[in-house]
Amino acid sequence: SKTITWSPLMAEKGGYKHFMLKEIYEQPRAVADTIAGRLQAEEGDIYLEDIGLSDEQLQQLDKIFIIACGTSWHAGLVGKFYIEKLARVPVEIDIASEFRYRDPIVGENSLTVLISQSGETADTLAGLREAKGKGGKTLCVCNVVDSSIARESDGVIYTHAGPEIGVASTKAFTTQLVALYQLALKLGRVRGLLTADQCREQVEALLTLPRKLEEALEIDGHVEEISREFMNARDFLYLGRGNQYPIALEGALKLKEISYIHAEGYPAGEMKHGPIALIDEQLPVVVLVPRNDTYEKVVSNLEEVKARGGKVIAVVSGDDSELIDKVDAIIRVPEINDDLMPLLTSIPMQLLAYHVAVFKGTDVDQPRNLAKSVTVE
Amino acid sequence: SKTITWSPLMAEKGGYKHFMLKEIYEQPRAVADTIAGRLQAEEGDIYLEDIGLSDEQLQQLDKIFIIACGTSWHAGLVGKFYIEKLARVPVEIDIASEFRYRDPIVGENSLTVLISQSGETADTLAGLREAKGKGGKTLCVCNVVDSSIARESDGVIYTHAGPEIGVASTKAFTTQLVALYQLALKLGRVRGLLTADQCREQVEALLTLPRKLEEALEIDGHVEEISREFMNARDFLYLGRGNQYPIALEGALKLKEISYIHAEGYPAGEMKHGPIALIDEQLPVVVLVPRNDTYEKVVSNLEEVKARGGKVIAVVSGDDSELIDKVDAIIRVPEINDDLMPLLTSIPMQLLAYHVAVFKGTDVDQPRNLAKSVTVE
Repeated sequence: SKTITWSPLMAEKGGYKHFMLKEIYEQPRAVADTIAGRLQAEEGDIYLEDIGLSDEQLQQLDKIFIIACGTSWHAGLVGKFYIEKLARVPVEIDIASEFRYRDPIVGENSLTVLISQSGETADTLAGLREAKGKGGKTLCVCNVVDSSIARESDGVIYTHAGPEIGVASTKAFTTQLVALYQLALKLGRVRGLLTADQCREQVEALLTLPRKLEEALEIDGHVEEISREFMNARDFLYLGRGNQYPIALEGALKLKEISYIHAEGYPAGEMKHGPIALIDEQLPVVVLVPRNDTYEKVVSNLEEVKARGGKVIAVVSGDDSELIDKVDAIIRVPEINDDLMPLLTSIPMQLLAYHVAVFKGTDVDQPRNLAKSVTVE
Repeated sequence: SKTITWSPLMAEKGGYKHFMLKEIYEQPRAVADTIAGRLQAEEGDIYLEDIGLSDEQLQQLDKIFIIACGTSWHAGLVGKFYIEKLARVPVEIDIASEFRYRDPIVGENSLTVLISQSGETADTLAGLREAKGKGGKTLCVCNVVDSSIARESDGVIYTHAGPEIGVASTKAFTTQLVALYQLALKLGRVRGLLTADQCREQVEALLTLPRKLEEALEIDGHVEEISREFMNARDFLYLGRGNQYPIALEGALKLKEISYIHAEGYPAGEMKHGPIALIDEQLPVVVLVPRNDTYEKVVSNLEEVKARGGKVIAVVSGDDSELIDKVDAIIRVPEINDDLMPLLTSIPMQLLAYHVAVFKGTDVDQPRNLAKSVTVE
């Protein structure tokens, strides 16, 4: 019989080979915890305990800034879609290290939303102080209670992801998306853009997320096989449109961070304005193409890649079988409404980066040159 | 004695080996032509003949959208700095293929600025129609008289770059920057943000540009040497902050387009949030570090790259000698005010891409997979 030896470190990893993998698998639970206690199903409303802003203040907002770095910035890009669609408040998203030197036009009826897992990111903290100094209101989306950014913001929406140890963020990202969705629903309700019934419908979709994430994780073995096939690629492109474009950026960043492969995310429609020159037989292109309003457009971008000899890994939703003959590999995620689809397509992005890195033998949880929380500017 | 044979095509190229090089060298003239006739030195004002909007309409604007693709989008990113700084109107910049599917919040007092060299870019034309359909005002920055976008916009600011034949845009880009600067000055004057004296000062700086561009072009031989040294790199990074970040993106795009090297632009402060994992001895990093308010910050980003073994090519201004011992190659551009510096730092970006491509033997004027003007979506 085989003896299994457990080290104390492995025990902390709950049997997973790396913290990153453990944290990827914790997402259904982390998302459920971030949803819990905030849904008022009967009233068709969202309850955000520590938002720090009255309904009247939320009604008077004329502009929202979202400020973040790295993976949190990608969450913010999705957040802009949520808020503009559900609450029709104009959103400007900026990278924290750029925002603070831009002399941004922040008014007193503006809200600046800071996103930071640790709540200690130096650039984001500086952005918070810049916005406050100009008289605007501030709110943070943060995973660490009583962190500097949480303490200095007027309000906070905590993500309940639990401690994230892997340097490459996974469960913090998906719970940030949930928090931003809740903020958008809250704003939509308070500002009269969403009826109780409409909000209830969104809330019901949100409640299906943990189960859908479980289902999405079942592709792990298939993604591992694909990773083996493409692990020796020198470069990757990731393409998406609309709320899938930030997921393309996030997928590319994950691969960069832990496998050291030069990967770049692009809006799919922008490829023909330059990056298409890079396409040859050596270049795998990950295309996010769930069924939505721009499906046909993205398929046509995908065909442009194939026509030039590129290798396509397509991420599709549900039982979509239209693309099977057109692409080199296909990854399926479950169906869900279009707003929440970015959470599901994030799963293969994380798993692909993880398995490629493991095959390459890099230090997945502690990649070279990177710190978990960047507390210097 | 040596006989030189001229082909008709070479004659059109005016003795240059490629249209792209000819067009790079035409920039002092193209910029001068785009300045000409628009400066009212005495009144300290800008005259834009075809702007199509009354002073009152310009005063009432509460939001400006800038919509473009590829290189024109990079010009727009610089334009946001110009307009927000000189006229304090909030600017949202978007990629055309994203804007039109976003259901953007366009009001009747918003102005949407379309930027397109050809005036026929399908995505940008669709963005124009989206903005018009929502009741907003429209203005284009365009190089081709009576093009579709020029005809359908309420107003137009023509760039006078002359015909651009090389697929990789050069003189169209720098003249777009001039046009956007003129728009920002005009808005600043009309909205009472700039006095006649302040505007006159900016105008005087603008008038020095053609000569400064001539001077900047004198580095050509030096950039050619650097290009020879780095031509075999598989990947490049380009870093900049503030109004130099779009130039980093543009430098990376130029290299991608004509040399097929995977190059990526990043805001310098964002590097530590992910891409720094890519840094090793194989990776040249082009850092745009002219003397300005973020100089020390960018130098510290540059030192992070060096500390991890990366090769740094620094673009500095004037006689800056501080970095000589810290970097692997240094490229100088003349001094000019910070707003106009992006035009000067564009020159080495263009020349570096050009010479690398020539050394690699690619088809510089007709790179693979690319069309000069993208008239399909």
